[in-house]
Amino acid sequence: MGGPGLCCLASSGDRPVLYASGQSILIARLVVHRARDTTRLASIERSHISHFFCQVAEAALATQLKPHQEKSNFIIKTPKGTRDLSPEQMVVREKILDMVVSCFKRHGAKELDTPAFELKEMLTEKYGEDSGLVYDLKDQGGELLSLRYDLTVPFARYLAMNKVKKMKRYHVGKVWRRESPTIAQGRYREFCQCDFDIAGQFDPMIPDAECLKIMCEILSGLQLGDFLIKVNDRRILDGIFAVCGVPESKFHAICSSVDKLDKMSWKDVRHEMVAKKGLAAEVADRIWDYVQCHGGVSLVQQMFQDPRLSQNKQALEGLGDLKLLFEYLTLFGIAEKISFDLSLARGLDYYTGVIYEAVLLQTPAHAEEEPLNVGSVAAGGRYDGLVGMFDPKGHNVPCVGLSIGVERIFSIVEQRMKTFGEKIRTTETQVFVATPQKNFLQERLKLIAELWDAGIKAELMYKNNPKLLTQLHYCENTGIPLVVIIGEQELKEGVIKLRSVANREEVAITRENLVAEIQKRLSES
Amino acid sequence: MGGPGLCCLASSGDRPVLYASGQSILIARLVVHRARDTTRLASIERSHISHFFCQVAEAALATQLKPHQEKSNFIIKTPKGTRDLSPEQMVVREKILDMVVSCFKRHGAKELDTPAFELKEMLTEKYGEDSGLVYDLKDQGGELLSLRYDLTVPFARYLAMNKVKKMKRYHVGKVWRRESPTIAQGRYREFCQCDFDIAGQFDPMIPDAECLKIMCEILSGLQLGDFLIKVNDRRILDGIFAVCGVPESKFHAICSSVDKLDKMSWKDVRHEMVAKKGLAAEVADRIWDYVQCHGGVSLVQQMFQDPRLSQNKQALEGLGDLKLLFEYLTLFGIAEKISFDLSLARGLDYYTGVIYEAVLLQTPAHAEEEPLNVGSVAAGGRYDGLVGMFDPKGHNVPCVGLSIGVERIFSIVEQRMKTFGEKIRTTETQVFVATPQKNFLQERLKLIAELWDAGIKAELMYKNNPKLLTQLHYCENTGIPLVVIIGEQELKEGVIKLRSVANREEVAITRENLVAEIQKRLSES
Repeated sequence: MGGPGLCCLASSGDRPVLYASGQSILIARLVVHRARDTTRLASIERSHISHFFCQVAEAALATQLKPHQEKSNFIIKTPKGTRDLSPEQMVVREKILDMVVSCFKRHGAKELDTPAFELKEMLTEKYGEDSGLVYDLKDQGGELLSLRYDLTVPFARYLAMNKVKKMKRYHVGKVWRRESPTIAQGRYREFCQCDFDIAGQFDPMIPDAECLKIMCEILSGLQLGDFLIKVNDRRILDGIFAVCGVPESKFHAICSSVDKLDKMSWKDVRHEMVAKKGLAAEVADRIWDYVQCHGGVSLVQQMFQDPRLSQNKQALEGLGDLKLLFEYLTLFGIAEKISFDLSLARGLDYYTGVIYEAVLLQTPAHAEEEPLNVGSVAAGGRYDGLVGMFDPKGHNVPCVGLSIGVERIFSIVEQRMKTFGEKIRTTETQVFVATPQKNFLQERLKLIAELWDAGIKAELMYKNNPKLLTQLHYCENTGIPLVVIIGEQELKEGVIKLRSVANREEVAITRENLVAEIQKRLSES
Repeated sequence: MGGPGLCCLASSGDRPVLYASGQSILIARLVVHRARDTTRLASIERSHISHFFCQVAEAALATQLKPHQEKSNFIIKTPKGTRDLSPEQMVVREKILDMVVSCFKRHGAKELDTPAFELKEMLTEKYGEDSGLVYDLKDQGGELLSLRYDLTVPFARYLAMNKVKKMKRYHVGKVWRRESPTIAQGRYREFCQCDFDIAGQFDPMIPDAECLKIMCEILSGLQLGDFLIKVNDRRILDGIFAVCGVPESKFHAICSSVDKLDKMSWKDVRHEMVAKKGLAAEVADRIWDYVQCHGGVSLVQQMFQDPRLSQNKQALEGLGDLKLLFEYLTLFGIAEKISFDLSLARGLDYYTGVIYEAVLLQTPAHAEEEPLNVGSVAAGGRYDGLVGMFDPKGHNVPCVGLSIGVERIFSIVEQRMKTFGEKIRTTETQVFVATPQKNFLQERLKLIAELWDAGIKAELMYKNNPKLLTQLHYCENTGIPLVVIIGEQELKEGVIKLRSVANREEVAITRENLVAEIQKRLSES
């Protein structure tokens, strides 16, 4: 204690707390603030803190620091793993979201919204190994709450709570996960998800095929380059585990390990299975024989012939559904985008049937190399048991859905725009109201109110006497196409000058024709 | 303990859990939870819990209850003061938000987004008496975080953090406040705010007048009936307090009391001032003389003449600005919507100049009565000191802005739609793909993919053999205008039947003309 890292003493709430340098200089401010109540300072348990620091706090109290001096080491930032979105970023984001939402609407989905937090109870036992990543709210009296971790569990809770048996809905919203943020890859602790789900008892694989069609439409529409959708089925995975000799109690744990194959080598995954999860080495190797397989519908046929797997009822069910799925995908014209991949496992606990994940492919530098996987941008699957976990009587509603990971897509689109040097307009202003003369604020205000009231997007300078050049430069810099200019001459003649920023042409227009002329110009452009 | 509040015992997943009504039972849950490991059960301090519960817990372990039995008293709900928005509500909400955002864009604002939570430190000392209503996140290791309480403080933090000196931005987002929810009035603990703010050093009252213009445009545009915007200035209030003899240390507390005048009688507010806040009774009565006043620009003139107030420098500054403001409001054509109201105080600590609040007026039952105030729907003001609270050197950026309280507006619009029995379409589907025959799924899937790929919003039934009548009823119930029908006859002839749901007319169209014909029909309607 008291070394170079330690800076000051603070009382947070009623508990005395010590903070170290870097992050928490700002807490010194709290000390000084609270120290105004000297009786409170005295009540801090001195056994917990160095006497030296009490002296610092008291000294600070005595000297009456000015606000800005107190804050000389105040660090302003957003919380770890979160970020603000600047106007430029918001324009990109809105474009992507518009495109995604219009696809969801094209497929007949309704919109739903749920609170940012749920009763903690609602989220427990839904996320398997990831449960520790849920953000909890502080117990401030009342209910125990957690921030939502995805949009799927709140959807299932909504269905059970309202006894809805059938629904096609979309939901765009933020979710929160206490992961180690790897921001370079577009991974954040707060991020936006776009979910589409179909709930209800229907004939097999028709809604599932539509989900894959939607993923293809969105990824093609966003022009993110080549992509591939990996498909598998939880029942096939369970079948593989069973025929390879994995004890049933270890299915979830081994499934988790398989899920890591896209980030870790087989050697490391095998080590985890054997050394950490206690699987026999020969069992692990048998799993490896299967999970290396990937291909099209012919691989489904091949697995039907597999002497071991064809003996497993669950696996056969999964394979039967995949066969049907490929038939529908062919009718939709997207079968060549889909790869049956036995290594696809998906981390979340709640999937029960078909699962899928879309990855972007990067054209390799050399023709003979395989395309590079640059990460997953959309995923989903069937979860027929989740609604029943909320229903008092365990009644189930079968569901299938998908989630678009827009943050990663933002990163890619942003990067592309930077590379091509695209300029983004962050406002939609159509007309600027300018004057070359002093003391023309009143006329400008009257004029701009007319434009606003006619629904025209307009701006002016918040100055009594702005320079004309400044006003025109502002239009050029922000991409405003038209300028309306009013001066003494115009006022006397009852006209307004309308200037096109692009070609700098000016024409005089009578005041009463101005709105109509502007609307005509805007509709032409 | 162990009385009627105890309902059942459950094993959810592999962990035994006890559920019951009331809060004490939560403790029991924890106990049982730990009881999984019997050695651990033994280690529980039995002095803290009833022996009865331990017995229940042990019994539960032994009996292996089935999932649905476990949950018979599981209560599924959203957290207190929050709600889901159903598809019908989302349609209303999106309409209102579109209208608000298009007004913000008409005034040249850029969009910004900030995280749902901030470092706790960023929110302290910003909200005065309301600080206790901030939601904190649990300390899970790492930073101390709080959910944002409004969009204004994150905006000021953004400006300071990025050293932005000038910006006109809007932000639509949720905020969270631990208030007692009064849901009937549209007050929730989670609610959506629509904020517009202008930051920067400009000539006086021009941006302020634009904020009031925006409030008028939005409230008129939403057709919420008659409304009034009350305006005051923090400097005038401080001036009143000073000339009435309030000690400066009590300004904030007395301002808070004045703020309650729209909900409490003067008698009660006076009691709070005198009995609770230690103000001399004659000082309170002098304040009352002022805060009863309300009127138009003539009241500003009258206050300039006030023998006491005209001696106060701060009050004179505020009155001078209000005079200028009214001049601009007259040019904007909205002066008659504005009332200078000396009782308007606004709770939040950060306001420094002009403040305003829009209230809806209800036409009274009797002509001689005054219109009824049915609550505030928008508010805002000038906060020139807030950015400086974040800046390490205390550099300020003057700001003025407004916030639209959309939840209350939702309630009003929803109520109105119910009254008028308006039916809301929750999907935008344009075409339904139907068949009168069995075994036509393949043809339907091929056809609908064609429509989707042409950008047409289309649906079909997820059944192999749906009944034609069911398909047509679905279109009538959900408002889908067109049906495309394919059967054996049509397939043979290479045509499709196109049916208008409204008049039930059907025409045959060749397959290659279908998309063009649908697009023509949709553009005409």
